[in-house]
Amino acid sequence: MSLEPLSKKLCKGDHVENNEFTSFKNLNVVRILQDKPESKAAFIHGRFEGRDEDAVVIVEKTPFSAETIQQVLSSDTTLTTHHINDIYGTYSGYPKPELNDIKATIIFPATEKHIIKYTDQPIHAINETGDDYKIVTLPYLKKQDFHIQWVYNILEKKAETERVLFEDPDPKIGFVLLPDMKWDKKHMENMYMLAICHRRDVLSLRDLTEEHLPMLRNILSKGLNAIKEAYGVNEDQVKIYLHYQPSYYHLHVHFTHLKFNAPGSSVGKAYLLTDVIDNIVLMSNYYQGKTLTFVATEADPLYLEFVKARKATNHD
Amino acid sequence: MSLEPLSKKLCKGDHVENNEFTSFKNLNVVRILQDKPESKAAFIHGRFEGRDEDAVVIVEKTPFSAETIQQVLSSDTTLTTHHINDIYGTYSGYPKPELNDIKATIIFPATEKHIIKYTDQPIHAINETGDDYKIVTLPYLKKQDFHIQWVYNILEKKAETERVLFEDPDPKIGFVLLPDMKWDKKHMENMYMLAICHRRDVLSLRDLTEEHLPMLRNILSKGLNAIKEAYGVNEDQVKIYLHYQPSYYHLHVHFTHLKFNAPGSSVGKAYLLTDVIDNIVLMSNYYQGKTLTFVATEADPLYLEFVKARKATNHD
Repeated sequence: MSLEPLSKKLCKGDHVENNEFTSFKNLNVVRILQDKPESKAAFIHGRFEGRDEDAVVIVEKTPFSAETIQQVLSSDTTLTTHHINDIYGTYSGYPKPELNDIKATIIFPATEKHIIKYTDQPIHAINETGDDYKIVTLPYLKKQDFHIQWVYNILEKKAETERVLFEDPDPKIGFVLLPDMKWDKKHMENMYMLAICHRRDVLSLRDLTEEHLPMLRNILSKGLNAIKEAYGVNEDQVKIYLHYQPSYYHLHVHFTHLKFNAPGSSVGKAYLLTDVIDNIVLMSNYYQGKTLTFVATEADPLYLEFVKARKATNHD
Repeated sequence: MSLEPLSKKLCKGDHVENNEFTSFKNLNVVRILQDKPESKAAFIHGRFEGRDEDAVVIVEKTPFSAETIQQVLSSDTTLTTHHINDIYGTYSGYPKPELNDIKATIIFPATEKHIIKYTDQPIHAINETGDDYKIVTLPYLKKQDFHIQWVYNILEKKAETERVLFEDPDPKIGFVLLPDMKWDKKHMENMYMLAICHRRDVLSLRDLTEEHLPMLRNILSKGLNAIKEAYGVNEDQVKIYLHYQPSYYHLHVHFTHLKFNAPGSSVGKAYLLTDVIDNIVLMSNYYQGKTLTFVATEADPLYLEFVKARKATNHD
């Protein structure tokens, strides 16, 4: 079957033209893939009437804006009361639609991969001992192709050169500092910078020993300096940490604004650089022996390696 | 001036009666006290026309609900296009007001304290060394009246007895386990339980040594067991941590669902109980010597103590 223009098949004229929708007309909700009440977002699997393909729809409420808040807080917004207690009253308010938009993303046609990607996955905490790392994690890492050419491209100035804020070119203790893709570089309170070390033989926190202390201290002090100079953000306004497990296995350090509740800054994922330095000073092989807890989805291949390994151990 | 009924002074008839509002009519925005774009909430200082008193208005967008999502994703919600790229399209959507309510809290008349409470405060990271704790923090704590009678009331079964899920009455290693006030006890993915130890001589993480290992291990294992039995939440679905600084200085442990991005679960505030146990096993006085980083607002008296102490040191 050839793919005819959507506008002919999908809708009777008024809500879509060339994959561009003017409303959610004819969309049937199949399933809520994921609900994020904290951020007021939802991921939905849908199907348009008369079509076999799947759609994924992502909806998210928008933040209030300084420009329109006075219009929202006007006689146009009616209120219904929940309860009143002395000086405190709680209500449901109903602003005019044009002042209360939602952000919508429509993926159509969506593949099975899109649906899996946006489906809420069960997650598990795994306590990885030093031995687990050697027996399960490291062999798994060695089997993988990590696609970190993009990291080498940055370090070799073959890519993103204009984004680099600061570089210390020293091959032993040097690093490159640049903004994380998630940061818009406008809102300082969402500041998110990454320091990527020049050394290529340090996979993660697990590898760090006293040998790396000069590099870690260098990243800490020069990273903070560069951020202060470029953005005016003081050192006591910055949270500096490593991830374990990281999303790629070439040592890098996250610098985020203290006010920013950055994804991945939770305990059990983030390790303060100052704590890492202190612990290595206390004991050079602290991070080789320490049990590190990380969280993985059931679809994560590393989680499956752990399930396999735990089963094998139980059968011994 | 006597306080006449609001309905007479404030509005011409239709939007308020006995401190109950039917719209935001006549409200002038003085200032946005705090913007929380991540949770789509805002705190506003306002004044009603013809009134001298201040008002604080808190508005927050509501999560999507399974009951109404199909109505939101219908022909009633018009879309305007941001951009289209192949199968991906992003839009602004405009649901009908009754399907897109906001939660509003009106505090009126509001005091200066309300305004300060809801105003965004500058925050700072403080690196508290072991010596800082002895010289600055502990003397400050001793000066305070901590109002932890409510903790003793729970431990002595004078209050909240019906909320207690589990108790180990042992005076040395025992504890009481009960839901945190923030948890509705309905949504398992927001599970939030607190274990409060019976010992009254342990202020915080700072006091813990090998002497307390039996208590910590007891809280860990019996706490997880009780949660599994009562709520069916498996141990690898639970995050268990202490706060430093804690909100009250009587040792307690937080048990939250792994999926819940609980306030206070960030690195620099939360310390995994398993890490605490490991570190004390490694070195009994680990938490007396370790520099602990905590975040404080400028209005926090402990922050002011540190500012004073740092100045005094610099003048020496």
